[in-house]
Amino acid sequence: MTEARAFASAEAAEAVDRLAREVRTALQEGRLGDAARAVRDLHAADLAHLIQLLEPEERVALVRELGSAFDPDTLSHLEEAVREPLLDALGPEWAGHMVAELESDDAVEVLEELSEEEQREILAHIPAPERSAVEDQLRFPEDSAGRLMQRDFVAVPDYWLVGQTIDYLRATPDLPDEFYDIFIVDPRMRPVGGVPVSRVLRSKRTVPMRELKLKKLHLIPATLDQEEVAFRFRRYGLVSAPVVDEAGRLIGTITVDDVVDVIEEEAEEDILRLAGVSETDLFVPAGETVRRRVPWLFVNLATAILASVVIALFEDTIARLVALAVLMPVVTSMGGNAGTQTLTVAVRALATRELTWANAGRVIVKELWVGCLNGLLFLAVGAVIALVWFGDLPLALVFGLAMLVNLVAAAVSGVLVPLALHRLGHDPAVASTVFVTTVTDVVGFFCFLALAQWLLLD
Amino acid sequence: MTEARAFASAEAAEAVDRLAREVRTALQEGRLGDAARAVRDLHAADLAHLIQLLEPEERVALVRELGSAFDPDTLSHLEEAVREPLLDALGPEWAGHMVAELESDDAVEVLEELSEEEQREILAHIPAPERSAVEDQLRFPEDSAGRLMQRDFVAVPDYWLVGQTIDYLRATPDLPDEFYDIFIVDPRMRPVGGVPVSRVLRSKRTVPMRELKLKKLHLIPATLDQEEVAFRFRRYGLVSAPVVDEAGRLIGTITVDDVVDVIEEEAEEDILRLAGVSETDLFVPAGETVRRRVPWLFVNLATAILASVVIALFEDTIARLVALAVLMPVVTSMGGNAGTQTLTVAVRALATRELTWANAGRVIVKELWVGCLNGLLFLAVGAVIALVWFGDLPLALVFGLAMLVNLVAAAVSGVLVPLALHRLGHDPAVASTVFVTTVTDVVGFFCFLALAQWLLLD
Repeated sequence: MTEARAFASAEAAEAVDRLAREVRTALQEGRLGDAARAVRDLHAADLAHLIQLLEPEERVALVRELGSAFDPDTLSHLEEAVREPLLDALGPEWAGHMVAELESDDAVEVLEELSEEEQREILAHIPAPERSAVEDQLRFPEDSAGRLMQRDFVAVPDYWLVGQTIDYLRATPDLPDEFYDIFIVDPRMRPVGGVPVSRVLRSKRTVPMRELKLKKLHLIPATLDQEEVAFRFRRYGLVSAPVVDEAGRLIGTITVDDVVDVIEEEAEEDILRLAGVSETDLFVPAGETVRRRVPWLFVNLATAILASVVIALFEDTIARLVALAVLMPVVTSMGGNAGTQTLTVAVRALATRELTWANAGRVIVKELWVGCLNGLLFLAVGAVIALVWFGDLPLALVFGLAMLVNLVAAAVSGVLVPLALHRLGHDPAVASTVFVTTVTDVVGFFCFLALAQWLLLD
Repeated sequence: MTEARAFASAEAAEAVDRLAREVRTALQEGRLGDAARAVRDLHAADLAHLIQLLEPEERVALVRELGSAFDPDTLSHLEEAVREPLLDALGPEWAGHMVAELESDDAVEVLEELSEEEQREILAHIPAPERSAVEDQLRFPEDSAGRLMQRDFVAVPDYWLVGQTIDYLRATPDLPDEFYDIFIVDPRMRPVGGVPVSRVLRSKRTVPMRELKLKKLHLIPATLDQEEVAFRFRRYGLVSAPVVDEAGRLIGTITVDDVVDVIEEEAEEDILRLAGVSETDLFVPAGETVRRRVPWLFVNLATAILASVVIALFEDTIARLVALAVLMPVVTSMGGNAGTQTLTVAVRALATRELTWANAGRVIVKELWVGCLNGLLFLAVGAVIALVWFGDLPLALVFGLAMLVNLVAAAVSGVLVPLALHRLGHDPAVASTVFVTTVTDVVGFFCFLALAQWLLLD
């Protein structure tokens, strides 16, 4: 029971929440010692959460006051937008001292978001062996397995006995704190199999390692993208996997706890990108938030104006029948919503690889059916509503027909746009929404107003 | 290397994809044996993926042909919409035979989605001890830790020595295939600590278990919701955790591979709900898909008509200045987009508990600033565009002003609506979009048309 206190009640986050308010009060009243004492035993993850709830200057004051009681692991739990200014305020010497204490994958996580100059300044304060290890890992591409891995692992030759392996583990001090698989390597350090630690523990000392039931290894090339790493861990239920260099030599391991973060990040990326936000900006200042969100609003402005141009084509029609201006946003709104439903399912299915070229045809046909059924339903509902409202049967039918056409257009574009973007090598989450809603806006306005001009006014 | 073949190349999913096409051809040409041989060595997860790519009747044919070579684990990897009809087609006897082979958590996953009658029919074909174990677990609430856990675990009393523990593990055949922590329990079976297996392996036989550095346990009550379970695993980087009953007695364990699925599911739920889809319906037939998606479209129809009513208030104004009809959708579209950006960040931050009542005030103030800055920017941009297009300065200024007001409304509602829904105990992902876009539509149309009537026409 020597490890840090972690909130394990059903109200874990709420407890940290309350503590954060106490700490803020203490800091505001200048009771720095009280504030530090209140958080001293927190788990690093909870302390990071608490720090994020404070104002920027309070964060610095609290960490300064904690001094050597500050758990370096806290840094890897912080959001980047909180961590960077904090490291800035506390200086490269402090940062170097902290980063040196971290496991190599956590050190990389903290450093990789900084500018090269900041990295150099901090690295200068890290002792040589750790420094070069971190530098090596930073040379792998961003978001690659090489940056995600830990450089510590346990590997033994296949001719060893279980007893030899256990003696080696007992005698070697410099091993990871916790590990789940022991890798069997050939003389060139290429992994040929893995044994779960629990299986070793259950075997007699005289059994050769190679005779234990080996796990098929999922070798992870160091340059593999973390999204693909996460996919494999998830699909095959892995707990750890060996990372290899180009020559196939074992150079590190990735464990599932690192991957859990990646899975959550990747899903979050999809959510945010669908909404036109590149990454979470909760902790980013207002000015910077605007800078990040504005490009998407400009794209939307351009497509909205495109839709307006379509309306402008029918100015005379609208002048003669203003009810058209009243009803037209309903047509585009329904199309936009139905399109968003379809494209979201498609984007997710592409991300989880449940939608591929093998079943794309079937899914397109299905969505076409969905669009037709939705369309017929809302043709009827829409026509009745417009008839009751305006008492004009031809107008009501035009409204219903436009709804039908637009719901079919929504279905087709909702599945084809993400598929096409994916095929062209783009992330379908990034631009699908704007393309599909442009389609539904343009088709919706054009179809409703053109039908009206043709059927009602000529 | 005795375990099943799993695709570990960078093109894992694509390889299964290609294989699926071969299998389909073989099935269509009646070469059932070839089809079965092609998939015989696949990992259960890959086989499930491949099955999902087939047509419903092909799925049944392939599984029938595989016979006893069908890996029961495949069932737990299938999407519910694929699994249910497959179990139906193959009958309760086959299903019972397969489910009996699964670990208890996987058996529960397969059975819990079925009707009570189907469950009973299948359970009748499962041998008594496994049956009652599964029945016990099904009594826990849906989406609870009790359903997620495995009932097998390794627990020893704290007075045992490492050597005794190892001897017990070697001598006991009926243990989980792989485990990561050994739990230390008191005489009443209440867990008091845990030791990672790797730590046991590295310790001398004469050391008492209680003297090993114990891990602080995160006890999971069996009735805890799986979302909270996933939150704890993720925050504290857990690999396994003990599940306890009301009396605090150890009754099972949850391992991280089960939690990875939950994390992905919960994030996916948020994505889909924001788009008005309750759960992924990729494999659901068109008719049922419509039934699931239509309620949301009706809600959207209602709100769109509410916005139309606002427009109808200004029919005379529009009849006198048709340019208003051309520009008004731009105002609402910009508001809708900016609101979606804000609400998505807020919904995610609530889900990851980064947004709480401790920092809500700060976030609201920040988003208000973002709205004002966005508003001023698009006031200027919009006014210039409208001026160039219509050559009418007063109209251009009204357009810009409406944009400003609506972008501020978007920011405020984008953060207040999710917070309020969360406070009221609702899932903010479910209804935030509809509330916020209703606000931006109503405010956008009203403000633009009212300003125009007041400033341009009176």
